[in-house]
Amino acid sequence: MRRALSLAANGPAAGPNPRVGCLIVDADGTVLAEGWHRGAGTAHAEVDALAHLPAGAARGTTAIVTLEPCNHTGRTGPCSVALIEAGVNRVVYAVSDPGHASSGGAERLRAAGVEVVGGVLAAEAEAFLADWLVAARLGRPFVTLKWASSLDGRAAAADGSSRWITGIDARLDVHRRRAGSDAILVGTGTVLADDPALTARADDGTLLSAQPIPVVIGTRTVPADAAVRQHPHPPLFYPGPDLGAILRDLHARGIRRAFIEGGPGLASAFVTAGLVDEYLVYLAPTLLGGDRLALGDIGVTGIDEQRRLEIDHVERLGDDLLVIARPRALPSTPTASPEATAAETRHAEPARTETRT
Amino acid sequence: MRRALSLAANGPAAGPNPRVGCLIVDADGTVLAEGWHRGAGTAHAEVDALAHLPAGAARGTTAIVTLEPCNHTGRTGPCSVALIEAGVNRVVYAVSDPGHASSGGAERLRAAGVEVVGGVLAAEAEAFLADWLVAARLGRPFVTLKWASSLDGRAAAADGSSRWITGIDARLDVHRRRAGSDAILVGTGTVLADDPALTARADDGTLLSAQPIPVVIGTRTVPADAAVRQHPHPPLFYPGPDLGAILRDLHARGIRRAFIEGGPGLASAFVTAGLVDEYLVYLAPTLLGGDRLALGDIGVTGIDEQRRLEIDHVERLGDDLLVIARPRALPSTPTASPEATAAETRHAEPARTETRT
Ligand SMILES: NC(=O)c1ccc[n+]([C@@H]2O[C@H](COP(=O)([O-])OP(=O)(O)OC[C@H]3O[C@@H](n4cnc5c(N)ncnc54)[C@H](OP(=O)(O)O)[C@@H]3O)[C@@H](O)[C@H]2O)c1
Ligand SMILES: NC(=O)c1ccc[n+]([C@@H]2O[C@H](COP(=O)([O-])OP(=O)(O)OC[C@H]3O[C@@H](n4cnc5c(N)ncnc54)[C@H](OP(=O)(O)O)[C@@H]3O)[C@@H](O)[C@H]2O)c1
Repeated sequence: MRRALSLAANGPAAGPNPRVGCLIVDADGTVLAEGWHRGAGTAHAEVDALAHLPAGAARGTTAIVTLEPCNHTGRTGPCSVALIEAGVNRVVYAVSDPGHASSGGAERLRAAGVEVVGGVLAAEAEAFLADWLVAARLGRPFVTLKWASSLDGRAAAADGSSRWITGIDARLDVHRRRAGSDAILVGTGTVLADDPALTARADDGTLLSAQPIPVVIGTRTVPADAAVRQHPHPPLFYPGPDLGAILRDLHARGIRRAFIEGGPGLASAFVTAGLVDEYLVYLAPTLLGGDRLALGDIGVTGIDEQRRLEIDHVERLGDDLLVIARPRALPSTPTASPEATAAETRHAEPARTETRT
Repeated sequence: MRRALSLAANGPAAGPNPRVGCLIVDADGTVLAEGWHRGAGTAHAEVDALAHLPAGAARGTTAIVTLEPCNHTGRTGPCSVALIEAGVNRVVYAVSDPGHASSGGAERLRAAGVEVVGGVLAAEAEAFLADWLVAARLGRPFVTLKWASSLDGRAAAADGSSRWITGIDARLDVHRRRAGSDAILVGTGTVLADDPALTARADDGTLLSAQPIPVVIGTRTVPADAAVRQHPHPPLFYPGPDLGAILRDLHARGIRRAFIEGGPGLASAFVTAGLVDEYLVYLAPTLLGGDRLALGDIGVTGIDEQRRLEIDHVERLGDDLLVIARPRALPSTPTASPEATAAETRHAEPARTETRT
């Protein structure tokens, strides 16, 4: 299973589908074939592994797969059926598929007489698939909120100037993480103030191969010559302010990882709504004072209402510090209605603006 | 010299005098005696080492000492003279004594025909004595500014409640560091809002053996029943707002390490005045929003005026994070006038409220 997980990691982090790895082994435990999923529209891991074997060679073997084989016909047929037809007689998987339409693979396999064992290395596989699983369970993208601030919590100096608070290492880290997201969200305040390109770029300014879809939220008009309109993907515009509805719509478009880049108005609204799954806080060793805060009001009046987080990771990036944290308890109320969730599976049609092929 | 530095570390961190270690070695390099300074009013390291030898035994030996031997009669005589009288014929030291009255030991030794070598392991010794050297050079205490805040830079929730933002490990760390300081400074705002005891306490609430002198700054009256008035040391009161003058007075009282515990008003004033040598920022993994900031206005308008720091150390303390930083460049203008500095040497009379014996 550990090998299957490392195969899974070959897949793309972004995109609507989970990263899955699969091994086909014989009765002696010899590995006959390996496979992984390369993104929406391509073969699932099980089918990819089976494709490496001559016809009939999978008969009587065991498939080891990181996610419960799907039971759904999307742009590819159900993996459960492919495994049954190939004659696999044992399937071992790590994590159950939470998708309403795609789950049920284990049942279908058992009904066909295949021995099925779930939950192997489940914790590791859950951690690996964390963001995709959140998206599947809540019917909205996994939401990462990023901000960069001084050690005293300011996102800009009193006059609004903010280039640069963090150093080049921190900024490149942001670009790498942008590239691992499906969409990058900002408020009109940021677009009008900073005119950001919202692309994921390398050290030398060239575009990285993966680009998140830019999403601008707010009622104010974005000028025709705004840099975001030159983005490789046409931006999506939402007037707001219902962030839950925006996230559901993004999910329906195949977006599983949303990267919120601010500013303070939008960031605070996401925190207030309990819609943040992961915080990336880049802290620069500098003091600014003043009232340009990275986070504004989040509806906390007394200390009892504080939004407790858990720190997952702390890292020095050049002179700066990156703190990765997540809410101490997952938001208790999923934002998606049951119907919305049922309609949005990991086999969702790719969004018009889909970047993966 | 490395051994001398580790002897020096036996001395008390707080108090007006530096921590100094000394070895007496013979021509073969055999260590004949060791000594260190135990705090104001006790023998200096050189005299302590010599005291371990029978009369005449130091003749023709080498003294290895972490700080240039002093040339000043305080409550003890000059060490330079003691070394000359003992017949030591070579002195090796690490750091020169920056004190206006106490320096000149090397010259006096050379004049008496003793071979003198300075600067051995100077960088290590400088780092070891950093806070004492800052105090000696600037004629004011080494200033540590501490604050505890949420990840978004708030020191309290909107209603002022702040118990507890950080956890027990962070709070015990603060108490240990309080005990290593000579004075703990707060504004009247904090005293009136929180009624803090300003003692250094252990896990179980008992007092640690070393207690910093509480210093309250502000014009407002501190009530007769305020907890700070029950402190083992009678508090010092200054109306403010001239922080430079307060620091000079504290220095004259033998205080070499000042620990600023806030609140935001006093903290911001110290930052604005460029009087902070070290920052201790305890960051709790929580979000508060609102306007109760750990640091207020510090006179920075544009990004070019930002107060850049350097991070020295990052540490996890329970769930929290401690970031230790210092100004990228030392404050360029010493706060002490030359006369004030000349009058305040490392042999300053102990303050009325001196804790060390
Ligand atoms: N340090 C950093 O990490 C960072 C990152 C980004 C930006 N910034 C700085 O942030 C500043 C801009 O701040 P900002 O707060 O105005 O920008 P913002 O958060 O990008 O935009 C706020 C706007 O978002 C729209 N919006 C839509 N739905 C909303 C909802 N539910 N809640 C709140 N807002 C919603 C509103 O636009 P309408 O009024 O048009 O409806 C609102 O005015 C700039 O100075 C920029 O430099 C800093
Ligand atoms: N999270 C933390 O680490 C932390 C630590 C301490 C306090 N706090 C919180 O901070 C709040 C109190 O805030 P605060 O700002 O009022 O407290 P403060 O900084 O303790 O007190 C401010 C007062 O200090 C006096 N002062 C003297 N010289 C000054 C100068 N040069 N500049 C500025 N002030 C000078 C003034 O008193 P006069 O007006 O009397 O002249 C001023 O009003 C409380 O809610 C407390 O809980 C938090």
